[in-house]
Amino acid sequence: MGSKLTSRSTDYSKWYNELVVKADLAENSAVRGCMVIKPYGYAIWEKMQNELDKMFKETGHENAYFPLFVPKSLFEAEEKNAEGFAKECAVVTHYRLKTDPDNPGKLIVDPNAKLEEELVVRPTSEAIIWNTYRGWVQSYRDLPIKVNQWANVVRWEMRTRLFLRTAEFLWQEGHTAHATKQEALEETLQMQEVYADFAENFMAMPVVKGVKSESERFAGADDTYTIEALMQDGKALQAGTSHFLGQNFAKAFDVKYTSKEGKQEHVWSTSWGVSTRLIGGLIMTHSDDLGLVLPPKLAPIQVAIVPIYRTEEQLEAISVKVNEISSQLKAKGISVKFDDRDTYKPGWKFAEYELKGVPVRVAIGARDLENGTLEIARRDTLEKKSYQQEEAVEVIEALLHEIQENLLTKALGYRKEHTTVVDSFEEFKEVIENKGGFVSAHWDGTEETEDKIKEITKATIRCIPLDTKEEEGVCVFTGKPSNKRVLFAKAY
Amino acid sequence: MGSKLTSRSTDYSKWYNELVVKADLAENSAVRGCMVIKPYGYAIWEKMQNELDKMFKETGHENAYFPLFVPKSLFEAEEKNAEGFAKECAVVTHYRLKTDPDNPGKLIVDPNAKLEEELVVRPTSEAIIWNTYRGWVQSYRDLPIKVNQWANVVRWEMRTRLFLRTAEFLWQEGHTAHATKQEALEETLQMQEVYADFAENFMAMPVVKGVKSESERFAGADDTYTIEALMQDGKALQAGTSHFLGQNFAKAFDVKYTSKEGKQEHVWSTSWGVSTRLIGGLIMTHSDDLGLVLPPKLAPIQVAIVPIYRTEEQLEAISVKVNEISSQLKAKGISVKFDDRDTYKPGWKFAEYELKGVPVRVAIGARDLENGTLEIARRDTLEKKSYQQEEAVEVIEALLHEIQENLLTKALGYRKEHTTVVDSFEEFKEVIENKGGFVSAHWDGTEETEDKIKEITKATIRCIPLDTKEEEGVCVFTGKPSNKRVLFAKAY
Repeated sequence: MGSKLTSRSTDYSKWYNELVVKADLAENSAVRGCMVIKPYGYAIWEKMQNELDKMFKETGHENAYFPLFVPKSLFEAEEKNAEGFAKECAVVTHYRLKTDPDNPGKLIVDPNAKLEEELVVRPTSEAIIWNTYRGWVQSYRDLPIKVNQWANVVRWEMRTRLFLRTAEFLWQEGHTAHATKQEALEETLQMQEVYADFAENFMAMPVVKGVKSESERFAGADDTYTIEALMQDGKALQAGTSHFLGQNFAKAFDVKYTSKEGKQEHVWSTSWGVSTRLIGGLIMTHSDDLGLVLPPKLAPIQVAIVPIYRTEEQLEAISVKVNEISSQLKAKGISVKFDDRDTYKPGWKFAEYELKGVPVRVAIGARDLENGTLEIARRDTLEKKSYQQEEAVEVIEALLHEIQENLLTKALGYRKEHTTVVDSFEEFKEVIENKGGFVSAHWDGTEETEDKIKEITKATIRCIPLDTKEEEGVCVFTGKPSNKRVLFAKAY
Repeated sequence: MGSKLTSRSTDYSKWYNELVVKADLAENSAVRGCMVIKPYGYAIWEKMQNELDKMFKETGHENAYFPLFVPKSLFEAEEKNAEGFAKECAVVTHYRLKTDPDNPGKLIVDPNAKLEEELVVRPTSEAIIWNTYRGWVQSYRDLPIKVNQWANVVRWEMRTRLFLRTAEFLWQEGHTAHATKQEALEETLQMQEVYADFAENFMAMPVVKGVKSESERFAGADDTYTIEALMQDGKALQAGTSHFLGQNFAKAFDVKYTSKEGKQEHVWSTSWGVSTRLIGGLIMTHSDDLGLVLPPKLAPIQVAIVPIYRTEEQLEAISVKVNEISSQLKAKGISVKFDDRDTYKPGWKFAEYELKGVPVRVAIGARDLENGTLEIARRDTLEKKSYQQEEAVEVIEALLHEIQENLLTKALGYRKEHTTVVDSFEEFKEVIENKGGFVSAHWDGTEETEDKIKEITKATIRCIPLDTKEEEGVCVFTGKPSNKRVLFAKAY
């Protein structure tokens, strides 16, 4: 526990970094830019994985596993993809260490164990996977291929932050192959929808579904579909992307199929991914100056029960009651932790569960036993109230639903308040600088304008929302004609 | 599908390689020694993971994630461990590629992006984890730490085989820290027991629990506990290991705690792991010349249903019946695949499900509809029999249990037949050469004798079984006195 968190208003970035470490989610490691995900943080990731994996399987995907390494010659095959990732990739050049002849006890790279061809540690797996798919696809009968992989990837980022941007991160990457453009496009949109559904209904994090401008596209994609969330400090977070890859990888890796009509055709493809970055988004959507606030559906512990007692006899009597309530909760699939440690005081435990974002906290003391009561506190609003013991299970179950709902409603409210429609560049700058959030503005569609706006304001086009309506207007920056608004924001 | 498998008696090794590829479990990749685990093979791994993960959590462990890379200076800190793995590790030396100035479109390693310190791709994670644990442990209150990680690791093996020995493989590695030697020893044994339980009750693969001789110990361990299985060709497979690491890593990484008495003590530790190698063991324990034989508890598809029909009307009528039975099976947690593809004939499908090791196959035709019957075939014995449709669910449920039992019984029988007690070296050689299997023999306890026996026979000491009884005897090789028998075998 230790000292209090820096408040969000004092320094949002410092608050975030402190919170991640103090709530035992993750920490920096001895390897530059790589994190250790601690058990409490990993438990959140496991919950995310379980739900997403179910959704992937329900939409007809299977899991598989492809090599960590990509031989350089495959890595460079799809030119744009290679160009996009070459600047920040870890490269294996040797396969052995040997004792340093000048310094026994120390090891050096063995110059006699140089690889004939260097291996890139995968920053993403299109290359190795499309090289594999070539062997899997002959006829239209072999399509579609709908495969997902849970894996680690490495991108040698220069500025890293726990969960948000790390040199190594965990993710899933779906890679699908289709006979037609139409089917691949549908898959791309379906997976964006799956991500949006997960973000809103499990993370309680509202997202805007949109498509990226060309400059923000995935290297090698024809189009990148995205879900964009808004953090409490007014900055946007790209939370998941689904790429329509056209025939780019099929052409680079010569993946063709024989159609029903007997013609040779290149395959169409998609890829899509979300990563441990989602945990950063989860934190920055809901948490407060006391610590984490976790939506019940992803909280590793949903209910923490703290006994308040002086004597061993009191603790025993309380335990009997608590075990009764716990087992009823567990039977309903609710996770409960009864914290009867005698090494910490109740006040310390209350603060601990606030810091860790446990949605519901129950306190029960000797006096409660006499009265048949207990105290239930909710983490999101910090309200607490006394209830009869016999209604506890029902109240807690309802409360968990209510907290899940409330977090989404609150986040939706925040986003609504922080989405501003602007029609002049003065207003644009003023909003970006002082209020933050999404700015909905007309743009002339050129990369040049996009770059200039970014240079001046640090805001980028987060996406062209899918539900944007056609609307006559003029670009806020150049005054040139535009027929729809796009969303700008500063972003993580 | 394609052509028939090589038979086991013709060439066991060839049979294995063909089976892994033809049954769609895995294939070699473009990266030397690294495999692609295909969806059907990965589905088996997922089932294994689920069960093991449950067992780890039930025994009080939590999951976490540590970096893929180990800085060279940490890697070399525990001397024996470093020595053991330095010879076969992948080393990252650079963090960027750039366009080849002599050959645009090609990439080369950027000499200006050399890492200050080389990074070893983890062959095992003791070093990076113990460097982390130093920050987690101050007092006895912080102990025990019982953490597991599901991860990929890389060992630059020269001779690789799908699942059995690959340069990259998937595994779990548990790493625990304890206040006392006793507690660490108990943990080591507990995890060996968990592995044995999993092997026998889920994989239907009987194992001998034992301890390794010094020469076969994990590099950095004080003792390595193992589970050893016997494959159908008489060779042993080390299927899982649990290491008592003493204070070796705590000393190398200076991990100390303050005891209740206020003294500074080094922590005691264990590590334990099983890997995708288990899939190789599963295959070689049960499968036959027709293909895989999978124990129902780990089979991705437990029941395959094949309709036999001429007309669309017949298929429709069959489908109605099948859907009824399927939904009853699914309600019991049994996985069912109704294969109504019209692109393949029933005979082809029968062979396909035999190849893929589906435990129970159901066939139902137009005539069956009239008679209210169906045919149920079991993969393990290849028996088939006609049943009334209304008894199908009950019969199948019972059959799945029976198959699971039968596979274990059969494997136990094979092992019993192939475990030979010998008292002379002539007999030893003769058994190892002609019959194979485990040889139980007296050994004088020296590495020298172990090495010589290996040189002559290729057999190694698989383990000193935990249940070995004290027994006066003489070493089969040197005639020196020995007080217990150990198990020898040729091994994978």
